[in-house]
Amino acid sequence: MSQTIPENCRISTEVRVMYFDTDAGGVVHNIVYLRFIETARTMLAIQMGMNFEEIQRTGIHAVVTRTEIDYKRPAKLGEILRVEGRVTEWSGIRFWVEFEVLRASDNAVLASSRQALALVQVSTGKPVRLPAGFPASLSLGL
Amino acid sequence: MSQTIPENCRISTEVRVMYFDTDAGGVVHNIVYLRFIETARTMLAIQMGMNFEEIQRTGIHAVVTRTEIDYKRPAKLGEILRVEGRVTEWSGIRFWVEFEVLRASDNAVLASSRQALALVQVSTGKPVRLPAGFPASLSLGL
Amino acid sequence: MSQTIPENCRISTEVRVMYFDTDAGGVVHNIVYLRFIETARTMLAIQMGMNFEEIQRTGIHAVVTRTEIDYKRPAKLGEILRVEGRVTEWSGIRFWVEFEVLRASDNAVLASSRQALALVQVSTGKPVRLPAGFPASLSLGL
Amino acid sequence: MSQTIPENCRISTEVRVMYFDTDAGGVVHNIVYLRFIETARTMLAIQMGMNFEEIQRTGIHAVVTRTEIDYKRPAKLGEILRVEGRVTEWSGIRFWVEFEVLRASDNAVLASSRQALALVQVSTGKPVRLPAGFPASLSLGL
Repeated sequence: MSQTIPENCRISTEVRVMYFDTDAGGVVHNIVYLRFIETARTMLAIQMGMNFEEIQRTGIHAVVTRTEIDYKRPAKLGEILRVEGRVTEWSGIRFWVEFEVLRASDNAVLASSRQALALVQVSTGKPVRLPAGFPASLSLGL
Repeated sequence: MSQTIPENCRISTEVRVMYFDTDAGGVVHNIVYLRFIETARTMLAIQMGMNFEEIQRTGIHAVVTRTEIDYKRPAKLGEILRVEGRVTEWSGIRFWVEFEVLRASDNAVLASSRQALALVQVSTGKPVRLPAGFPASLSLGL
Repeated sequence: MSQTIPENCRISTEVRVMYFDTDAGGVVHNIVYLRFIETARTMLAIQMGMNFEEIQRTGIHAVVTRTEIDYKRPAKLGEILRVEGRVTEWSGIRFWVEFEVLRASDNAVLASSRQALALVQVSTGKPVRLPAGFPASLSLGL
Repeated sequence: MSQTIPENCRISTEVRVMYFDTDAGGVVHNIVYLRFIETARTMLAIQMGMNFEEIQRTGIHAVVTRTEIDYKRPAKLGEILRVEGRVTEWSGIRFWVEFEVLRASDNAVLASSRQALALVQVSTGKPVRLPAGFPASLSLGL
């Protein structure tokens, strides 16, 4: 897609692998990468102008409608990981964000993921159009 | 305490240890026992007449105000655990539930815990008195 | 794929939605569905002859290499969900499992997912060929 | 206890509350505070000289043997929390760490906790004496 992506639509976060992130295989559990990614995605949303007070007042949440994730190399206890995310596509009611989880020490890509999100009025389950300012701003201005 | 404890104030649940329950130490992660205990506690609350529709309508939740847990022996991947819980004490606004987590194969006690709970109107943070029928019934009848 | 799928390659598990499965949106958190699916997948692996003692002795684990999941309708606190899974495809070093998460009360499909898995010797990171008996048996016989 | 506590036995970490930390009650789930505390405790252990490579080589882990936690005020989505921890007591085979979870905006105490830990050789389950340098150093020097 040829849309220009504003600078505030990129995020980079870091996390250190804790015991509770690992499993008896000795490496980070597959589901946990999605928690790391969600932290990055939430920080990205905040950076794009999403406002938790607005969310709680309006009941409109950004809801994940699809996740794809490929696991490439395992992360281990104590390692520092970097999650890089960016908005890549959007239409009237949906946007896509792509992520890479990297090992900070050598930038090896451990996992890559893309997620589709939609704004949803949770009480009714109805989708809500992306705000006019998207992706420069994710604030609903409601 | 000399109060008689009704039969519906006891629960026993089973869970099989999954990968996501373990950590790189090769055993069940310490925090995960509290998830197992919460499942038992929720099934106990349902058995005592707590009703999720009532909770969602009234906004009154049973909130944990204190947890104590002692870890005695580790649980391992694939093991079947049994959680036994029972209400042990209660007063106007608070009740205590005690739990043991046992290894099903030999009844070894792996962890023991006690938790204090209070009914709270979440929107205001105000405690709510236990219903008159407690512990025979946890239904608020609202 | 025209391979015949043995009867032991299907699984159905149930889970009741607990508080810790939900988030402030009032519904089951998107990541949690993958925990429900992992429980079904592990029960499927056990049914197919995977043996936790063998895993711990050999260090060969079935590792998720890709997950896709589509979220269709939200699950709510207290609901009983059913996870249905089945092996759908396999080759020398990889197999695919598909899942649906359904609301037990009306069989509504809440989420559908497919995952690719590979057997990996965790200490070396090397893939291991599926055993000759796969999918009739996932036992490595080691 | 009148032992002097070295400066490296105190830690302060911050965390922002994510969706996956909250539950349908609209606030942070009770179990999640222990994840926040574990992150602080792990950073404290690193600061005290614990070394993940040493842990993985020796199989000696610092294991939680008891947790107590009191919940005072709820934390909410998007809030920044601060976890303050410090080693308070120790004997030959056990040490205690105390924590407070505070709301960063006004320093309100949301939860307070104490945990007992022991060094354990996980493969045998045997306790290991605290190193001679404890608490100035948690490195086993093995």
